[in-house]
Amino acid sequence: MDTSSPTYLVLDLTGTFAFALNGALTATRIARLDIVGVITLGMFTALGGGIVRDTLLGALPPATFQDWRYLAIAAGGSLVAFVAGRRLDRLAIPILVLDAAGLSLFAVSGALKGLELGSGFGQAVILGAITAVGGGTLRDVLIREIPSVLTSGLYAIPALAGALIAVAGDRIGVADLPSAVAGAVLCFLIRMYGVHFDVDAPKPR
Amino acid sequence: MDTSSPTYLVLDLTGTFAFALNGALTATRIARLDIVGVITLGMFTALGGGIVRDTLLGALPPATFQDWRYLAIAAGGSLVAFVAGRRLDRLAIPILVLDAAGLSLFAVSGALKGLELGSGFGQAVILGAITAVGGGTLRDVLIREIPSVLTSGLYAIPALAGALIAVAGDRIGVADLPSAVAGAVLCFLIRMYGVHFDVDAPKPR
Amino acid sequence: MDTSSPTYLVLDLTGTFAFALNGALTATRIARLDIVGVITLGMFTALGGGIVRDTLLGALPPATFQDWRYLAIAAGGSLVAFVAGRRLDRLAIPILVLDAAGLSLFAVSGALKGLELGSGFGQAVILGAITAVGGGTLRDVLIREIPSVLTSGLYAIPALAGALIAVAGDRIGVADLPSAVAGAVLCFLIRMYGVHFDVDAPKPR
Repeated sequence: MDTSSPTYLVLDLTGTFAFALNGALTATRIARLDIVGVITLGMFTALGGGIVRDTLLGALPPATFQDWRYLAIAAGGSLVAFVAGRRLDRLAIPILVLDAAGLSLFAVSGALKGLELGSGFGQAVILGAITAVGGGTLRDVLIREIPSVLTSGLYAIPALAGALIAVAGDRIGVADLPSAVAGAVLCFLIRMYGVHFDVDAPKPR
Repeated sequence: MDTSSPTYLVLDLTGTFAFALNGALTATRIARLDIVGVITLGMFTALGGGIVRDTLLGALPPATFQDWRYLAIAAGGSLVAFVAGRRLDRLAIPILVLDAAGLSLFAVSGALKGLELGSGFGQAVILGAITAVGGGTLRDVLIREIPSVLTSGLYAIPALAGALIAVAGDRIGVADLPSAVAGAVLCFLIRMYGVHFDVDAPKPR
Repeated sequence: MDTSSPTYLVLDLTGTFAFALNGALTATRIARLDIVGVITLGMFTALGGGIVRDTLLGALPPATFQDWRYLAIAAGGSLVAFVAGRRLDRLAIPILVLDAAGLSLFAVSGALKGLELGSGFGQAVILGAITAVGGGTLRDVLIREIPSVLTSGLYAIPALAGALIAVAGDRIGVADLPSAVAGAVLCFLIRMYGVHFDVDAPKPR
């Protein structure tokens, strides 16, 4: 997929917005953080995955810094979440849903950008998963949580599945939009299934 | 500003030295760290911001690895702090002042390097702030503190203000030295004001 | 050393395998991690150092993403450790030995890759040490331990020593294999000596 196409931009910018809301809502639950801390955590969460992806691809400066819309959407989403978070009592559900949405959109956009810049099939799938889990992992490290990608069985797996669908669709010549949407929807559904039923993969011992 | 100019080098190397002292003094307060841990934390703190800046700019290898003075000053500053730290009873104040100094110098040098390598106005300001908070954030993650950039209302804001002054000065044609110094001084004063009066930005709820 | 030479590839891929086993075994000791978490931590540990090295060298995309063997060995080693870890009661010793092996191999391979891509003598040594400690530091940050490179006196020092021997051997014209092996063996012996006798460098106060 051409990364300047509207489909790609909508995927990537919507993922940025979802992660900005997610990161900032997560921050509002931590007592010591004020508005600057909330917006900063939102921006790290929103932009982290894309920055890691573009660094690994050698596509520097990252899209985040070349296109002002990423910074604007990340800051705007964080600000919205700061205001909304003060009015919401129950944040656990929206935080999980937004995280799943960001995960899904970035898995697809990361994989497709990898393909466009010349990654092989397997590498593009891995790169999609890294893009998807990058922002949330950075968020968790900054607030001293063990990252979801380590503790939650169905976190890396749906990202890999979504990226795989998007890459496979591209390779067999399906049009951009349906294969991207199919990948993102599959990732989202697997992730929400895991969250809802608290599914984990097999544990050691 | 030309990044090979003496003004730029003095800013960037002095920031490196301030963060090396700061990181190493922080390390001496953690009981389990020996001299290698102290120097390593000093070097991470001193070099982290510049490495992140140069990676985001695609200016690789980073200046840190192309110019031996960065490594020498980071290691030397850390060693000085290791020796001095054993003789000082009260480290809290010097640690805060050195952190504010590094923050101010890197906000300006990061923004100006961004401009020189082609970043837009807004991106250069953000890049200056990332350079400024990068080393301290890495330091805090490594010693398992929640980073200052999240918890302290006046940490990212003075960095953005200092970077803004430096970039604006460059754009309206003020000479390098006065606009850089004005940006750094402004950042330092706002940061120390925040530390002294324990000012925070508005909090959620 | 030519980084496409068999000697270099054996060093780098064996280091990847050792760190994959180490990271995954470390993960099996953390109660909350399931198989995906174990493999993910193994892959972060195995691939982290090389990704940091290639990013600092501007050699992007990193070797990890250009050569499928790195991903395969990292995933395979992690899977082996997941299975084996369920059968082993005492993991502390293998974890330490594998960490020392990865440290030694990556110190040498990182330094030699730095030299080949044009780093100076001192920079190549530092780069070797960063490659060596990178994966383990990432591992420790993700599981919220203070990294070994800060707490253990003989962790950065053996990496620097091993890298120094490899770089010096290359410069004075010793053949690739003996100088690389000598550097790795020296690093491994110093590290195991430090582990066995619990040696630390001087501490503050």
